[in-house]
Parts: sequence; structure tokens; C-alpha cells
Amino acid sequence: MTKILETIDSPQDIKKLKIEQLEKLAGEIRQEIIETVGRTGGHLASNLGNVELTLAMHYVFDFKTDHLLWDVGHQCYTHKLITGRKELFKNLRQKDGVSGFPSPQESEYDRFTVGHAGTSIPTGIGMGIAAKKLGKKDHIVSFVGDASIVNGLSLEALNYLQDLKRQFLIVLNDNSMAIDVTQGAIATMLSRVRLSHTYDEINKTTRNILDHIPLIGRKMDNAIANFKKTIKMSLPASRLFESLNIAYFGPVDGHDIRSLIQLFNGIKDIDYPVVLHTYTNKGKGFHPAGDDPRSFHSTGPFTNDNGKITHIKAGSGETFTSIIGDTITDLAKEDSRVTTVTAAMPDGTGLRRFKTSFPDRCFDVGIAESAAVDIAAGQAKMGLRPFVCIYSTFLQRGFDQIAHEVALQNLPVIFCIDRAGVVGDDGPTHHGMLDLAFLRSLPNMTVLAPATAAEAQNACRYALNLDSPCAIRYPRDYAPQNDGLEACDSDFVTGKSVTILDNDSKIVIVSYGSCLKNAYEAAIELKKRGIEVKLINARFAKPLDSDIIELYKVGKTIVTVEEHSLTCGFGSALLEACCGRNEVDMNSQTSSLGKIVIIGGPDRFIDKNTRNNQLKELGVDSESIISTVTKLNNMS
Amino acid sequence: MTKILETIDSPQDIKKLKIEQLEKLAGEIRQEIIETVGRTGGHLASNLGNVELTLAMHYVFDFKTDHLLWDVGHQCYTHKLITGRKELFKNLRQKDGVSGFPSPQESEYDRFTVGHAGTSIPTGIGMGIAAKKLGKKDHIVSFVGDASIVNGLSLEALNYLQDLKRQFLIVLNDNSMAIDVTQGAIATMLSRVRLSHTYDEINKTTRNILDHIPLIGRKMDNAIANFKKTIKMSLPASRLFESLNIAYFGPVDGHDIRSLIQLFNGIKDIDYPVVLHTYTNKGKGFHPAGDDPRSFHSTGPFTNDNGKITHIKAGSGETFTSIIGDTITDLAKEDSRVTTVTAAMPDGTGLRRFKTSFPDRCFDVGIAESAAVDIAAGQAKMGLRPFVCIYSTFLQRGFDQIAHEVALQNLPVIFCIDRAGVVGDDGPTHHGMLDLAFLRSLPNMTVLAPATAAEAQNACRYALNLDSPCAIRYPRDYAPQNDGLEACDSDFVTGKSVTILDNDSKIVIVSYGSCLKNAYEAAIELKKRGIEVKLINARFAKPLDSDIIELYKVGKTIVTVEEHSLTCGFGSALLEACCGRNEVDMNSQTSSLGKIVIIGGPDRFIDKNTRNNQLKELGVDSESIISTVTKLNNMS
Repeated sequence: MTKILETIDSPQDIKKLKIEQLEKLAGEIRQEIIETVGRTGGHLASNLGNVELTLAMHYVFDFKTDHLLWDVGHQCYTHKLITGRKELFKNLRQKDGVSGFPSPQESEYDRFTVGHAGTSIPTGIGMGIAAKKLGKKDHIVSFVGDASIVNGLSLEALNYLQDLKRQFLIVLNDNSMAIDVTQGAIATMLSRVRLSHTYDEINKTTRNILDHIPLIGRKMDNAIANFKKTIKMSLPASRLFESLNIAYFGPVDGHDIRSLIQLFNGIKDIDYPVVLHTYTNKGKGFHPAGDDPRSFHSTGPFTNDNGKITHIKAGSGETFTSIIGDTITDLAKEDSRVTTVTAAMPDGTGLRRFKTSFPDRCFDVGIAESAAVDIAAGQAKMGLRPFVCIYSTFLQRGFDQIAHEVALQNLPVIFCIDRAGVVGDDGPTHHGMLDLAFLRSLPNMTVLAPATAAEAQNACRYALNLDSPCAIRYPRDYAPQNDGLEACDSDFVTGKSVTILDNDSKIVIVSYGSCLKNAYEAAIELKKRGIEVKLINARFAKPLDSDIIELYKVGKTIVTVEEHSLTCGFGSALLEACCGRNEVDMNSQTSSLGKIVIIGGPDRFIDKNTRNNQLKELGVDSESIISTVTKLNNMS
Repeated sequence: MTKILETIDSPQDIKKLKIEQLEKLAGEIRQEIIETVGRTGGHLASNLGNVELTLAMHYVFDFKTDHLLWDVGHQCYTHKLITGRKELFKNLRQKDGVSGFPSPQESEYDRFTVGHAGTSIPTGIGMGIAAKKLGKKDHIVSFVGDASIVNGLSLEALNYLQDLKRQFLIVLNDNSMAIDVTQGAIATMLSRVRLSHTYDEINKTTRNILDHIPLIGRKMDNAIANFKKTIKMSLPASRLFESLNIAYFGPVDGHDIRSLIQLFNGIKDIDYPVVLHTYTNKGKGFHPAGDDPRSFHSTGPFTNDNGKITHIKAGSGETFTSIIGDTITDLAKEDSRVTTVTAAMPDGTGLRRFKTSFPDRCFDVGIAESAAVDIAAGQAKMGLRPFVCIYSTFLQRGFDQIAHEVALQNLPVIFCIDRAGVVGDDGPTHHGMLDLAFLRSLPNMTVLAPATAAEAQNACRYALNLDSPCAIRYPRDYAPQNDGLEACDSDFVTGKSVTILDNDSKIVIVSYGSCLKNAYEAAIELKKRGIEVKLINARFAKPLDSDIIELYKVGKTIVTVEEHSLTCGFGSALLEACCGRNEVDMNSQTSSLGKIVIIGGPDRFIDKNTRNNQLKELGVDSESIISTVTKLNNMS
């Protein structure tokens, strides 16, 4: 029998279906998502949770002209499958397939390329402002997960939303679980509401809303008053939103397509901000994901043998993430000052073992990176030694707090910056290519990058003994073992690099961070080809090793290698150190100076691809390094 | 008669006073603040508003061991006067006086150097976590203005606060006016509460709280339930905080010292988070400030002739701020797409005229820089051309949003970055020394700096016609008129600099932004002394003029001058462009290359001082430039 999904080429085709067909389609879509993510990896549990909601929204709205804003963006798989991308979806997150996030380049049904939380309400407000000004009646629908709503960006926008004074629908997709169990008062409140509402009560709430929609006034105050009189809805949740002057309806069943369509039809034209609170089950329709949504939040490929799941491991060895997490756990055993702070990512940042060993020393603040940094600063102020474990891309949300509450106060907060560099299939919203720019510009900050497993451990130990802020950046990758890099086993000494291949060659490769392995392989191959190079592992982007500057001054040609944007990166730091600054060091500017070639990220956003291909794009794989050095050698 | 203030050397002395003496002291402190700020400039209105609150807090708590966290920090003048700093206070914000913000370097009564909003709750949570772990009973008091509480950082922390499970007092200092009229739902709610509460009702609320303090349970839920039964407090405000599981008391009169002391004594040992909502009058005791708190939020020196206020103008001409504000207003007349977005700073960023002319096109979102950027991105997505006017230091809060919702989407949002560079007496929390680091690292971004009044206008016009993101940075200063800089009158052309002094000299000064005036004066003086230099006004930090790179390649000595940290600044951009990048341009690395000397901000935080002295510290005043170039000339 032909699948309904095969007949869906655009959301127009959804509108023609009967409820029963939509329900059948939901099942087919779940199957498609499970099969595809098993093959490609991706965000599974959340996408299984919102199938009916997505179909119902597309049934009622027309998102070619209306605006559907995803928050967080990784929940858009059903949306992609029904907006003309089901063939490309087979290569989800691959170079030639669809992105795992909304992408205006892919489809007129997508508005923003979004991978960070909390963006849909403020960008929606901006679009609403413009629509009003342009006399457009476009509907704006912000589809927000319960984890995103607690982010400061969401909350700032919720506070401002009343001033928009036009239609704005927030669909709160509440599955009571962000990536991990959600933290804080709003999450507590939502989960209490969930626990206290039986299935029957939820159905009754839905019927009540539908019965009373004609009562909704054109004015916000009337609407709420009318509702208060007639419907007993979820009081704690309504209290929060209504205190922000946003009308609240719910909670309702997010899997009941028929009711959802009626509800959306009923509330879509209300001309003031409205929240529809929906309950969904993360991982619905796939038991392994429902039972363990944490593991299936973002998963690699897996095989599914009648429900027996085997995760396919892409490489071998230990990741930087797990080494750092384990090292912090070990340090915490020796040093009672050690705590950890994370923003909804205890698993992603390798802190599961720490959390189990020291539950009262692990602080997961939810998707609230700004607050996470300041909460750590407060701890450091009182003498603790917090390790703040956050992905590079998300730490951008804490930049001002790092600058002011940490660097300006010179407090010993340690930042473990995971996913620094290119991340592969998640693409441009998730790369960590900017952290050196925003960290090395801060006075008092020490910025490290370990190159091997041993260095990852030593970097943590070194940072713990500093009395000032320290950042440790490392990629989403397995940590190289020694294999020629044994010199990296030594302890960290402030501002000192490690020489891996020592000789008096004209060309010196200075590698920063985990690229060292590639640089080492390149150096070995180059030697075979008759080109000898000196190889240094910089360890510190700040403070920079003065010995490296000396090499420049005696006329060496230095090639820097880094997994960061070349703009403001490690090479840039070396250039700044080697040129004259103000009146200092001008005397060192003699005619015998060397030259510097910097290798790293280009000035453009890097598209989804395999991590290896992205490293090639940066020119930091061993082949590219060989090629660059060979050309340089031929020139000199 | 001896003033009481003269007898106060520490908060211990406050505790000995009778209520009547405290009231008298409050009057003396107001007088001292008015006189000092008239002489030195500073934050006046807010500091006049919280005198009684500050005295009452010090009367009840011991802030040597308890922790008083100021939010925003500029409200700390009374606190400074009674914590052993009244002599230094006479030189408020001067090099040898007290800072205008809390400063742990000055006093054991200060915790954090804070100038940005929303930090007191998250840092306080961190301190509370540490105190619990260390077995300390220290009280934590977060003194938060009604403008700060709506910031995303505050809101993230309020959401997490319940998880602290210990004493935490938030004193909400509600004067219904941030810097400008506060925006958004929380502000609306607070001002409704204020309008609906008579003075008698407030007194009754206070008495009710005091009567029922014995009823407060040790458990949060009981406490609220008990209160609900017995006291009719401000419902809308209590609803917000209680939905976040924070006990709410108030509103109470923030000028009634006797009641405040009783209240603080009553609630100080409650072992769960509590908000005490207090009403104060901004500018109390000084009619001009009470009548016009906006002008006296942050004021320069003024004379006070029996209430007739004359503001003392420090320089002459028009500021960059007012030129930019006026230019945007003029552009808005021609182009209906133009809007402005600001974060509680329509006056500070020169938008008053715009707001008056186009009230429905000026969006003040309150102290919510992250949301401001995304609200602008949404507008740009729909075809508008928003100018986002925010100080450089505060825009750090919007970095991730600029990266993701603006640069990654390549949307034409225009950032007018005020106070870029050193700001003088406000000191390290307010300098804008990092914006090039976080802006020029973003693909798709154009980064301009105008050097003269004419260029400020032309930069806005150019940016409006770009179809991609653009940032315009300018300092807190008067915009230089021509006086030799007539070449700057020309239109902006993408990636093209302007040559001010053209010749074939070995030394080329490349100035970025408003330092041009100093560089020009230096060049004229150098010529008198027999040293001729070529002088270029770069205009663009990104994209950089390739002609400047050519000058390096033909062997010139280039001196860059900028009002930004040398780390990741303009000079750094030139260095990156002149070295080999990956395989590109390596062929240009010949032995005839020139050298580059970069002048600008050091790698440390710059203390409060006059702006001129700070420019000297950066080495970008004309004398320093003359000295550097003379030395360079002697070397070559």
C-alpha cells in the first residue's frame, strides 16, 4: 500500500487529509525519522515527540506566508519531511542532504538557521513589529520547548511581548525534559502541573477551551477575565504567563491531532500574545528513546534489531569530553573546592560520572549560560574552584559575564570549552570557531588547548592550581594517544610550549591544540620527503611562549596550525606578539625577522559535513599541512 | 553643629544611632551626594533614592561578613560614604578618589566590581552555594533596581534561585524608572501596583508583614500559604515571584527607616529566597533630579544656584552620539524602512529626537541587549533596516545573537556602537575595548569607525545601503570637525580607506576611527620636526583596504593607531591580512616586506581617569604618536 508520506510534497497536501489519515501519516513519519536517524545520527527523541503538533500547525496555518519559528531548531524533522524535502531528508545532516536545523537556504518554509535556544520569541517579535508596520496579517507562531523557555533570551522577550500588541502564538512543547531533566522554578512548576493533571482533566481542559473560545474578547484583559470565570485551567502555569500579560491556555494533549486542529483554528486569530501549553512525550513511538530520552536527545547512528539498539561508534579511544569529565571527577576527590557548573549539558560535557559521584557539587542551571558563568563567579569569590563545562558555541552567551564577573574580578573560574573547533554534521550553529577571539581579548585570562589525552588531564590539573581565570578548549573528537607525542606528558608550566621535534630547521610548525596529531604526521611525512621541520606544541594561546617569539626574531619561518577562525585566533596572537606594540619591542624589529604563515578557519561559516572534511576545509589535516609546508619550502 | 556623617567611620557607627539620628544622617548624605556629584558628575537620581534603604540594611546586617550585592552598581554612593570612604568620596570617579561603582580593591564591604545589570542574583547564588558548602551562615542581600530585574541574566537566576535552598534576600528597589521609563510587562505590572497603592495602604502592608512575621514557616510553601491567608499584599507582583517559588513581601515604603529596620530584622533569617519590594523616589531631596530623573541618571558636573541648575559642558561641538542619532532621524524621514532599537538608553545613545519624531519606529526593550539584537534581526528579516544603538560594553551581552541571528543569516542590521573605546570616569566596567574582537571575527560583518563628524553621517548612510550586517563604532567624545581632515567628507566605498596626507614616506600611519585627529596633529608636528609620514584613515576594520596591504608588501613601515585593545583589534586585523594565510598569498611573502607597529590598548583593564589620560595610557594621543614615530624613524 502506498504510504501517505509519499504523496506529501508540500503542506498543501496535508490540508487535504482526514484526521484518520493525519494520524496514520504521523506513524509513517515516526518510522521515517527512526530509520533515518539510525542511519545518520541526529536529534531523535524530541522529533518523535512533536509529530502531531507539527502536522496540526501546518494543517491550520500556511507557513509560506505565516512564520513558524523553531526553538530549539533541532525539532524540525517532521516539518522538513512535509515541506518538499523528504528525499533530501534521507541524507539528514550529510553534505548533500538536509541540515538538522531549519535553513532558509533549503526552503521557503524556514525563516532562521537556528541552533541556540530562546531565539524564536525575540525574532518573532521583530517580525511582528515589521508585519504591523508593513500592514501584513501574517501569523507568527513560536514553537518553544520547555527547556528553551527558561533561557534569559526567551524571558527578556516574554517580558517585552505585551508591547507588540498583535497576534503572536507561542506553542509551548512541554515534554518535561530538555536534554537532561530541566532545572529551576519554571521546570518545577511545569512538572507539578503535569503530575497533577490526569488524562481526563487534560481532555476536559481542551473541551473547555474550545467551548469558550467565542468568549475571548478582542482585548487581553477581557479575555483573561472571561476565561478565569469559566475555566479551571492550570493555575501555576497561567500565573507565570499572565503576570507577564500573556494569555495562557492549557495544558492540552500534544498528540491529539483532532483537538489540536480545533484549538489552533480557535486561537489563531487572537490579536494579542497567547501561549498554548501542550504536553508531548519525548521519544513517542520508539520505546528505547522514550525510556532513555537523554541518550537519544542527540545520537549517533545506531542499529535497531527489533528494539535491541546498538549504537555505532565512529572511532576508537576516549574523547576529550570524557577525559576532561573524568579528570575533574578525580580532582574533586582530592580537592573539596572543586565543583562543576553546566547549562543543561551534564552528559554532553562528560559530567555524568561527576554528577553521580558528587551530586551536591554539580550545578546544572538549565539552558542559561549567562547565569551559569555568574553562578560560578560567585562560587570562586568564596574560595571554591568551579569548572564551567559548556560547548564553545553556547559559551558565546556568557561572554559579557566572563569579561566582567570573571576576568575583571580575576577570579579562578575554569572554563572547559567543549566542541571547540568544527563539529561535523551539526553545522554552522554548533561550531566553536570564535572562542579564542572572545577569550584571549580578556585581561587576566589564561587560554589553553590540550593536544593529547595526557595533556587534557594535565591542563585540568594546571588550571586548578592557578589563582586566576583559565579556559581549556578541546574539540568534539577522540583524544590522540601518544604515538610520538610523549613529550606532551609533561606538566603544564605557565606560558611554556612543548617541543615535539627539535632541530634547527628554517621552518617551524607551531600547533595549537588537537591539530598537533595532524601536524606531527605531516612532519614525519615531510621528513621522508626530505623536508625537515621543527614542531612545537604551543599549549598556551595566552600567555604565549616567548621562545616562539624568539624563533621569529632569529629569522625562522613559522607556520601556525589551529582549529579556530584565523581572525583573532592563535596565529593572530603570535602576529600581535611578534610585531612592535606601542613603544615596546620596537628595537627588536630588525631586518633579520622571519615570516609567519597562519593556517586555520576561513572567514565564512562552515557548512555541515564530516568533521574530517571540515578539517580539510580549514587546511589543518595532515595532507593540507604537508602541501602548505612543501610550497613554503620551495619558496625559501 | 557637628554633622553626624562626620562621626561615621564604619557601619558599626550606624548601628549606634537612634532612628531620628538615622533620618538626620540621611539628609546629610543627600546633601553630600548632591554637592559631590555637582562637582564631579556621576549617577545622581538613583543614589538619592536609596539612602534610607542603604542605612537600614547596614543597621541590620554586617556587610563585612554578610554580602551586599549591588545591581546595578552605580547605586552605591551612600554605601561608600558610610564604609570608611567619605574622604575619598570627595573625588568621586576621579583618578585618586572612589570609583563610581563597587570595588573590592577599595573596601572589604564591596564584593564585585559591577557596572552591568542583572549580576547580583546569579553571583549571589554562587556565593550562597559556596557558603552552604563551607558551612557559613553569611546573609546574602541582592539590592536590585526595577530596571535590572527584567534583564535576562536576572531572570535566568530568578528561575534557578529556588534550588539554592537557603537564605537569600532580594531588595527590589522600585523607583518605577530605570534610566528611561521601564519597558515591558514586569515594568507595567510594577507601575500598576504603585499607582493602585495609596500611602495608607503601603503603611498597612508594612504593619501586616511585621505582625505576621512569626507566622512565617521554615518551609517556603507554608510561608506563602500563611501569608495568603492573612495579608492582602500586591497580588500581581506576588504572582510573578511566587510562580518562581520566591516569597514576596510588599510593597513597602523605602524611605521609612524605622519600618525598614523592623522589616529587615523580621525577614533576615528566613531560610529560603525572599523578595522585599520597596518603593523609593528617584531623585528624592533634590527637586531638579526628582522632576527630571532622566537628565540626572548619569550627569556631568553642574552648578546649583538655589535650585537653578546649570550643567557644565566639558568640551565644545557635537558628540558622535548626537550626530549619529540625528543622522538616523534624518535617514528615517527619507526611508520608511528605518527603525531604531535600544536597550533602556534612548537618551544615552542620542535617540531622543528620533523617539519624538518617530515614536512608533523606536523600540526601547529595557535592559535586555540579547533580546534587542534578535528583535532587530526579526525586523531585518522582514525588510526593515533597524539601527541598534547600544554602548559597546553592553553590546557584549548580545554577542551570540549578533553571531547567530544576524551574521549567520546575513541580515542587514546596523549596530551603532556608542562608547567604543575609553570612557573616562566610569572606568573599567564601561570601556568599550572588546567590540572589534567579537565583531570582526564574524563572517559577513562590515566594521566601520568614523573619524569625523562628516564621516559619522556618511557611515550611517553607507550602512543603510548595505544588504548585510554592519557595525559603526565611535567613542564617548566630540566628533572632530574638518581642520585638515576634509578628505573625510567623501562617501564610504566598501573596503576603501581615505588618504589624508599623501606622499611616498617610509612610515605610514594608518588610523582607525576617531584617533585620526590625534594622528593628524602628530603628523603635522612630525613634519615640522623633519619627519614626513603618510597618513591614512582606514574607515574599515573589515573588509580591510587592500591598498594598505600593498603598502606593507612594498616595504613600508606601517604604524596603526586605534582606540581598542591591541588584542584582536584593528592592528591585529592588518597583521592577519599581511601574513600568509593557509596557501593563499604565500607567494607575496618576499624579503622586501615592511614592518608593522601597532598602537592601542594594553592587555589590562584601564582604571577610571579622565578620557584624555586614558588615551595617553593607550598611546593614541598625539604626543605619544609623535614619540613612537620619532623612535621608529631613528631606528630605520
